[in-house]
Formats: sequence, structure tokens, C-alpha cells
Amino acid sequence: MSEASASEMEASWGFIRLQRASGVAILTLARPASRNSLSDGMMADVSGALTELADDASVRAIVLDAEGPVFSAGHDLKEIQAHRSDNDRGRTYFESVLARCSALMTQIVRQPQPVIAAVEGMATAAGCQLVASCDLAVAGAGARFCTPGVNIGLFCHTPMVALSRSVGRKHAMEMLLLGEWVEAPEAHRMGLVNRIAPAGEARSLALELAQKIASKSRVPVKLGKAAFYTQAEMGLDDAYAYASRVMAENMMARDADEGISAVIGKRTPQWEDR
Amino acid sequence: MSEASASEMEASWGFIRLQRASGVAILTLARPASRNSLSDGMMADVSGALTELADDASVRAIVLDAEGPVFSAGHDLKEIQAHRSDNDRGRTYFESVLARCSALMTQIVRQPQPVIAAVEGMATAAGCQLVASCDLAVAGAGARFCTPGVNIGLFCHTPMVALSRSVGRKHAMEMLLLGEWVEAPEAHRMGLVNRIAPAGEARSLALELAQKIASKSRVPVKLGKAAFYTQAEMGLDDAYAYASRVMAENMMARDADEGISAVIGKRTPQWEDR
Amino acid sequence: MSEASASEMEASWGFIRLQRASGVAILTLARPASRNSLSDGMMADVSGALTELADDASVRAIVLDAEGPVFSAGHDLKEIQAHRSDNDRGRTYFESVLARCSALMTQIVRQPQPVIAAVEGMATAAGCQLVASCDLAVAGAGARFCTPGVNIGLFCHTPMVALSRSVGRKHAMEMLLLGEWVEAPEAHRMGLVNRIAPAGEARSLALELAQKIASKSRVPVKLGKAAFYTQAEMGLDDAYAYASRVMAENMMARDADEGISAVIGKRTPQWEDR
Repeated sequence: MSEASASEMEASWGFIRLQRASGVAILTLARPASRNSLSDGMMADVSGALTELADDASVRAIVLDAEGPVFSAGHDLKEIQAHRSDNDRGRTYFESVLARCSALMTQIVRQPQPVIAAVEGMATAAGCQLVASCDLAVAGAGARFCTPGVNIGLFCHTPMVALSRSVGRKHAMEMLLLGEWVEAPEAHRMGLVNRIAPAGEARSLALELAQKIASKSRVPVKLGKAAFYTQAEMGLDDAYAYASRVMAENMMARDADEGISAVIGKRTPQWEDR
Repeated sequence: MSEASASEMEASWGFIRLQRASGVAILTLARPASRNSLSDGMMADVSGALTELADDASVRAIVLDAEGPVFSAGHDLKEIQAHRSDNDRGRTYFESVLARCSALMTQIVRQPQPVIAAVEGMATAAGCQLVASCDLAVAGAGARFCTPGVNIGLFCHTPMVALSRSVGRKHAMEMLLLGEWVEAPEAHRMGLVNRIAPAGEARSLALELAQKIASKSRVPVKLGKAAFYTQAEMGLDDAYAYASRVMAENMMARDADEGISAVIGKRTPQWEDR
Repeated sequence: MSEASASEMEASWGFIRLQRASGVAILTLARPASRNSLSDGMMADVSGALTELADDASVRAIVLDAEGPVFSAGHDLKEIQAHRSDNDRGRTYFESVLARCSALMTQIVRQPQPVIAAVEGMATAAGCQLVASCDLAVAGAGARFCTPGVNIGLFCHTPMVALSRSVGRKHAMEMLLLGEWVEAPEAHRMGLVNRIAPAGEARSLALELAQKIASKSRVPVKLGKAAFYTQAEMGLDDAYAYASRVMAENMMARDADEGISAVIGKRTPQWEDR
């Protein structure tokens, strides 16, 4: 893609900003005035951008951050309420919005590139689910996490799917049943985030991790990420049979040959697949 | 139920005490002289009380605590040994007692209300399993946990089912293979308990959490707890399809409408379903 | 087995040392010059020793440690590269080496005796997988862990199977995607290792744990370990049905009778099955 067409395309996003630099894309939720809520428009933009990035072999890792004091407040409640006047009191819309949101979260899991959340401020409900769905997460020291649906009569059922796969059961249940804030250090202790950065520096730490990932050969990262979530749903024997097949295939690739030769020869590998 | 009949019914429990206040039930194991062991009578009482509470829409959360220095010592070993003189050397009884104990633990998991363990003192074997089976757990600073079956030639096979779903594999294996005491701070680090209270204050902290849960709309909590354990056994796609269905249903409920309207209007929601 | 034939057999191992004392076997990776890499010979020796130990009822627990500054560096990369000149560019060999390595890791999981890793120095790639595959792990304060395949164009797909079953998802992903060192305290925080010993004392701490396990009755430990991994792959109801069957069987054993009688009688149990 030429630089001109890239700028053009980036200008076309209404709810997000998308930047690319040195193998890393930064996808920024850019509706701080509406607390980066996952409105229909925001979900369409994030999903569209991820689809575009999936086909861009120059992008090796993605940082997901946000503008303003709220990382994301989850679903757009006003949009939801507006549909209560639909003929079916909103049921069709509600089913559709949850299907699209779940598809977005699984899109992150299935994205060929690793996705790293960089969280400053508040990540709540489906906003917290976004963080749990990313492969890695970095939090600024002042970041806070919450699944507060229970406080408004709407349990965080779908955020629970991602959350309960990231942290232990009692931790997930505590967040879901109490709907209280979890501060960054506790989120770190739970395993919801990998690293704590000084306040305001989550993005730069996430970029640092993304650049490290971007320096690797592309295909092994892509194969490895996909295999991770696939084998996680298997029993031990099936997981080993599956992972062994993927790894044998990986061994046949030119960059595995180069990488292993380089380490034996104590030199820096020259990736073909960059 | 009138207050009189409630008192009557409560008086009927021989092994536990059951109190209700402000939407919270406190189920207290009350056989400290026999270390609150899960004898046939104790299991029948706990199970009976949970069944009764399941149908009581006024109870929104349950605290499970115990009298005396032992939260629960697990199975009643004297009862078990007494059945070795049965014609079949106890086999029928052993199968029955384990079936009833496993049913009790899954009853806690399936209980419509969240169950919060409040542990002071020692929780061992099936007593530790009780804690692991609860949705949340609070421990007094002096609480201790142990799965010591391995020390008496009887591995904690069924406690393992609950324990291994609460904590990481190596932590669970350490408790099961060594049969040693795990002090409250380590249990907290493992994720077996959510919070540590000062010694003697586990109950009041558990009550505080229970009252917070009791202040929420009832149906979302009930739906959410059930969905949590159901989706935990599914692959990612099935889990999202299932959780989305439950959440769309939840959105149609009057209290979700009220809760969302309240948060948009910056007012306190008035639950119908309380 | 007579002492003479034992020594003879032990002398037959080329890549490891195997010692037995007081119910504990110590399996030592003994190729420090090649960083205890899991070469064909090393894998054959470790697997052969485990097979031999599986049938030795006098061995109740196994400590797996290593000579030299590297616990194990994983696959033997020179061996792998040598097969690139095979007619099929190595594919048959790669499939075979991964099948054998996966079989070795599942052999540890299925080993009747608990296996305790005692790690000093570096455990990388399949060497880290070895640690994750053990039932328990002890690390010296200077131990370090890494799944660095991503740095050489060969993602740690099969180590991932063991790692992702030992630690939380974001922790596993961080190790796999970044390929960076994880120091002992962080490995402990993640749950990859159970205990940290002073540098150089991992082996003696692991031996201490192994001797505790060796003091228990044998069959419950064997049944319990096997049941742990079997039930871990089941849903809750199936897991309880299965674990209850195993535990009822365990209750029928002479040593459960003896153990329970001993605890009731406040005396030390005399195991038959030792």
C-alpha cells in the first residue's frame, strides 16, 4: 500500500486512529467524549481495522490503546436503550450487538498478529473484556478494571467469557459479583495484566514489547499464537499431537533453518520473512 | 414465610444454624465438638438448608461459616470406620457418602445465590473442598488450609476436583501430595481465597460482601452465576454463543432497563426484583 | 533387583545418572558440556529410566535435577540441523523427535511416582517444558526460565502445551511471544515453580519434599496423581463421578483403614504398602 493510500484509509476511520511504524500498528480508541464506548460505530471500526491489519504482512504486532481518561466503558448504553422502542422491544438489536461484540473479541484472539492492550484509566465491562481478550496487557499505574454490569441489572455475561479465561475462578467471580474497581496492582496480581508501567507510560511500554515481537520472524509468531488458543481447548494428548504437527511444519520453514543456524554460529539471524 | 415458622424451621436443624437478615442468609456449621465434620447428619443439614434457601427469593447471598476453632475437618472418619463391619466391608456406604458429598459440593456451585465461605481456623480435606467450592472465600488471618488425606492413606480425590478448579496445577498438586498446612496468606496468593480479614473478622467481611451482592437485582446475579460455571466448560466459540444468548435475555428484563436508565440518568436504580 | 545389578544398570546410562536412596530416585541430567540438551540419547535415557522406575515399587518419588549451570537447553539444535540434509529435508526426523519429546513429557505426567524438578541455572525451551511437566518444581534463587524459540524462528509450540497448563494465559503468552528470561521469583509468582530455595539448594529442598511424599502409603499417591490429570480434562459432574469412584476404591484399601484408624487412635500409621 502506498503512503498516500494508507493515510487516506486511516482518515476514513471515524472512531479510531490507526498508525503504523516499524512493523507495529497502534489502534487507538479515539472517542474520549463518549468514553470510548463500544458503540456500533466503534465496533465496526475496530473490527474493520483488525481485518485490514490481518492482511498487512508488514504489521507484526498491534498495540490497542485509547485516548482520554477512559480506556473503554464497554457497550454504548444509550444506543441500547434507544432500541427498547423497537417493535420487539430491542431483542433483535440486543442479539445483534452481542453477536458483533463477541465476534470482535474472538477476532482479537484469532488475529494473526499479537495484540497488546495498553491501558490507562478505566476499563469497564466490555472495555475490560477487550483487555482480557488481548494476548498481552500493560497497565499504567493508575489504571482500573471493573465488570460492573451487576450494578445496573445486567450481569457482564460476555465479558465473563474472556475474564474467566484470563484469571482464576475466585478472582473472576469477585469482579463479576461485586462489580467493584480493581486497581492495577491487583489486576497484575490476578494475571489480568502482564506489566505495570508508571502512569502515562503504558503505551510506551506496550510499544516496546510490540517492537520486540516485531523483530522476530513473522510466521512462527502467527502459527504460535493460533496454536496457543487451539491447543488450550484440547486434552493433553490431542494438544501434543496437534502442537507437534504445527512445530514440525515450523521446523521446515526457511527462517527456522536460518534461526537455528544463526544461534549455532553465534550470529544474528537474517529473517526472510520480515 | 412468617417469622414464627422461620424460627420453627431453623430450630429443626441439628448440625447447623441458619440465620437470615437483610437479604443474606448465614449458614453456620455448628458442631464444633466434632470439628464440624461432614458427617451424614451435617451433609444432610447443609444440603437441606441450601435447598430451602434456593426457593427463598428474599435471600440474595449466603455466607457459610462455622463455630469453633475448626471450620470443617472433612469427612467424619469414625462414621467411615464404623461401616467397615458392614457385609461388604463398607463399599456401599463409601460410595454413598462420596456421592452425597460430591452432590453437596455441586449443589453449592449450582445454588442460585452466591455462596461466600468465611473461614477461621482450620479447613481440611472435604472442609477445604467446601471453601474451594464456594463462589468467593474470605479467610481470617489465622485460617489454615490442608488436603491431608495422603497422610492417612486416603488421597483427597474428591477435594481435588474443587481445588484444581480454584488454583493453579502446581499449587493444587503441592497441597495434595504433601498434605501440609497452607496458611491464609499463601492461600490468598494461590487464589483459593479472595480476601484476608483480621483474625476473627472473616465473618463480618464476608457479610459485607454478601450485603453488597444482596443490594443488586436478583435475576442477573442468579443468571450470571449459573452461566459462569456453564461457560467455563465450553470452548471459546460455544461460550460466547451461550453467554450472548443469556445476556440478550438479561437485557430484556425490566431491571436491566431500569438499571441502564438509572445510570444514564445519574440516579439510583429502583429494583423490581428485590 | 540386587545391588550389583542396580549398579550395573545405572552404569549403562550414558546421558544421565540415576541414584536411589530411601524411597527416592534422583534422575540427574548429566551432560553439562552439551547443556543437558534433549538430544536423542538424552531423551532415550530419561524415558528409559522413568520406565525402569515405574516398575520399582521401592521408589515413591523422583527428583529430576541436572549437572552444571544449565538445567536443560531443550532440543539439540545441532542434531536437528544435521537432518536438513536428509532426503526429505528432515521432515521425518523432525516429526519423530517431536513425537518422542512429547511422549517423554506425557510420560512424566503419567509416571506413577510424583516427579519434582529441582532447577538451578537455566531451563529453556523443552528444558522449561520439562519443569512445567513435573508435578512439582523447586527453583534455586538464581534459576531462570525461558521459551526462546521465537528468537530463532521456531516458536515453542510443544513447550507451550505444558506451560499453558501450568500458568495463566497472559503469563504463558508473555514467555512465548517475547522469549525473554523469567527469573525465579517471577516464575514463582506465576505458579511455574512451587518453592524458591537459596541458590544451590534446589536439590536438597526437592529431596526434602520427595522424602515427605515417600513416607506416605504408595497406592493412594499413585491413584491420586493419575486421577488429578484425568479429572482435569473433565467437566465438573464427570470429574466428581470419576473421582468418587477412585476414592471409594481407595477407601477399601488396607492402608486407608490403617491410616484412618491411626489418626482416630492418635498413633502413627504402619503402612503395609511401603
